[in-house]
Amino acid sequence: MVFKLGLLGLGTVGTGTAEILLNPEGRNPLLKEIEIKSVGVRSLSKARSVSFPEGVLTDDLESIVNDPDIDIIVELMGGLEPVRSLLLKAIANGKHIVTANKAAIAMHGAEIFDAAQEAGVYVLLEAAVGGGIPILKPLKEALGVNRISRITGIVNGTTNYILTQMAQKGANFDDVLTEAQDLGYAEADPTADVGGLDAADKIAILASLAFGGRIKREDVYTEGITQVDAADISYAQQLGFTIKLLAIAQQKTSNGQSLQLRVHPTLLPQDHPLASINGVYNAVLVEGDPIEQVMFFGPGAGAGPTASAVVSDIISIIGILKSAQGSQRLNPLLSPEHQHYCAIAPMSELVTRFYARFLCNDNPGVIGHLGTCFGKHDVSLESVVQIGYQDSLAEIVVVTHDGTEANFHNALTEIRGFSLLDNISIASVLRVW
Amino acid sequence: MVFKLGLLGLGTVGTGTAEILLNPEGRNPLLKEIEIKSVGVRSLSKARSVSFPEGVLTDDLESIVNDPDIDIIVELMGGLEPVRSLLLKAIANGKHIVTANKAAIAMHGAEIFDAAQEAGVYVLLEAAVGGGIPILKPLKEALGVNRISRITGIVNGTTNYILTQMAQKGANFDDVLTEAQDLGYAEADPTADVGGLDAADKIAILASLAFGGRIKREDVYTEGITQVDAADISYAQQLGFTIKLLAIAQQKTSNGQSLQLRVHPTLLPQDHPLASINGVYNAVLVEGDPIEQVMFFGPGAGAGPTASAVVSDIISIIGILKSAQGSQRLNPLLSPEHQHYCAIAPMSELVTRFYARFLCNDNPGVIGHLGTCFGKHDVSLESVVQIGYQDSLAEIVVVTHDGTEANFHNALTEIRGFSLLDNISIASVLRVW
Repeated sequence: MVFKLGLLGLGTVGTGTAEILLNPEGRNPLLKEIEIKSVGVRSLSKARSVSFPEGVLTDDLESIVNDPDIDIIVELMGGLEPVRSLLLKAIANGKHIVTANKAAIAMHGAEIFDAAQEAGVYVLLEAAVGGGIPILKPLKEALGVNRISRITGIVNGTTNYILTQMAQKGANFDDVLTEAQDLGYAEADPTADVGGLDAADKIAILASLAFGGRIKREDVYTEGITQVDAADISYAQQLGFTIKLLAIAQQKTSNGQSLQLRVHPTLLPQDHPLASINGVYNAVLVEGDPIEQVMFFGPGAGAGPTASAVVSDIISIIGILKSAQGSQRLNPLLSPEHQHYCAIAPMSELVTRFYARFLCNDNPGVIGHLGTCFGKHDVSLESVVQIGYQDSLAEIVVVTHDGTEANFHNALTEIRGFSLLDNISIASVLRVW
Repeated sequence: MVFKLGLLGLGTVGTGTAEILLNPEGRNPLLKEIEIKSVGVRSLSKARSVSFPEGVLTDDLESIVNDPDIDIIVELMGGLEPVRSLLLKAIANGKHIVTANKAAIAMHGAEIFDAAQEAGVYVLLEAAVGGGIPILKPLKEALGVNRISRITGIVNGTTNYILTQMAQKGANFDDVLTEAQDLGYAEADPTADVGGLDAADKIAILASLAFGGRIKREDVYTEGITQVDAADISYAQQLGFTIKLLAIAQQKTSNGQSLQLRVHPTLLPQDHPLASINGVYNAVLVEGDPIEQVMFFGPGAGAGPTASAVVSDIISIIGILKSAQGSQRLNPLLSPEHQHYCAIAPMSELVTRFYARFLCNDNPGVIGHLGTCFGKHDVSLESVVQIGYQDSLAEIVVVTHDGTEANFHNALTEIRGFSLLDNISIASVLRVW
């Protein structure tokens, strides 16, 4: 039995995928039953590191998704359009889909999955989150028997590389970003990564699978790492923390009926399992009952690891096709049927610890006034440390106990208006695990 | 559609499994399609923390595996017999099997899997390795598209707890073992754990899936942790290592055609991903091309986590049954068809670093003679340190560069015979990562 693939896109991940498929020796024997029938590319004249028989490469992408001979479309082009249209056509034509496109799924997932349910085809996207780490399938299959309480991920390699370098070298964000761009760890336009948007796409996908409902992408509260200062990283270290960009999806404990969904830099205690995940690596921590906690760790990007995840989805579909003997019913584990949207708790209700760094004139009583103001707003302080001076201003670092976002920000608003503390400014605000 | 289960055994994991199945709210919706038809126990009069309707509990195990109404047998009794006979009967009766019994599978796997292939039923055993950590299914499905080069696991929670306690408290093996027994982390007869046999069962299962061939259980070279002395742990720490009981399956690099399979305490560099896995936690590191490395971490035992793995296997089967609509063909990903045995490289060919601790009279020239002897046998030394005294004997710790087991042991044999070094004794020998 031979299963025919149409690849859309032959960039780094597309090339990595083709390399696995064209060299099946020593891998799962199902790979020998796969043929790459067509590869859709933008330019036919570009030099390629993999070679295909005459007629496989084409710049007519429509012809691939309309080819009745093709069983599975593997979409590795990226971007939103024409991806959305091509996938919907392929689905309407009865083809199964494998994609690594987190942005397209986070944005158009509802439309794509509805179409797939109707057509009776699979849409698998293991490579969209965590690169080579098998995380989506374990979430759907193995971990779904638990009541998941929280998913916490370091799911963006670029920002984790930058934060790791800043921590290890005491370097500034801008310098490390430039270096990361030179090394190919950050894109020329790094907005999606450093702004937290890529991580938000990924936590939307993870949360949807873990909590069995759809997620509106705009419901993910998103802060990037551009405001993280070398000084904050240094103070965090002195206080026993590591700063990581975390993507978090969590059942709100008070009622268990709404989700908290957020991406932001976080001060993690150094003994937290995610605190030691450094460089471009990704890790996802899943907590639930009765599993307690499970963590998945591995390369979050890169042609090879991402291609591994793409090909694993391909053989998952082929394994099913071989055993199903023409049955039109989808395996509910690989094709969850939920259509409702998860209720999302407003960010103002989040209860967490905070870290804030203030710059102000070194007046006596400043710390007392800060403490009084936070107290008035029901935010109690864990520590207040005058850590140093910057440009002749005193630098005060505050870590709070658990408080609500609303109360904490009300306190900050009042502090901004202090007349007594001339020159007070809020240099940075971060959340603490 | 309702799928009927027969549970064999209602100990801690059996009870945990029933608790998940009887409380499906907030978990994968497939759980609502499962009915526990029968539960086989040894004693009907024993008090149980879960209650079943009249007639579900029975001490007639044969009646369960022969019940034509039951779709899936969940074996959580443990031990080799009558498990083997019951499973073979259930399989002959066309029932799918879920088991957590690593010993039965490591010992009788060939017979059981042959019977299952013939009968067209699944035998899943996620809970047999790594407790709640999803590792077997990701190995079969996601990671199998890679050329796996090595699997390294901390797969026995009892020994990891003991080694962690010894390291953190500087305590002796015997004292920590007694404490672990009091806490329920070690069994009254701890032989299978501290002797490395349990870890050997598990690496045999992991290797079989990762390398696509059967493993003879007796081919796993096995050393336990009983000979690890508090002194070795302390010296290892001084040299920058942590001692862990590792289970390793590795393609022999020289030809890639035979496997090295071994369980032994190992000095791991402190920055190795497995070095920070402490207490009763388990972790499995998978390396391959092009995935690079992926690590799975979580609770390696305990009723809840192990039950999570058991129930995940149950819903895997049900997901397939629901979509296959009576097809008799097995999904090759969940039911690998390999029947050949992996070739195993002899231990004497292993190339690794070694750690040895010698006690001897404090004669001048002792270190030189040790170095010369190792050199003669082609083992070069990375460091030789006279670390202290014990009972008026000098204590010398040697760490070698890579050398073969055969050469290293030839050197040790010669050293044992040194007349010059009166009183020399080899206090311990360990391998170094």
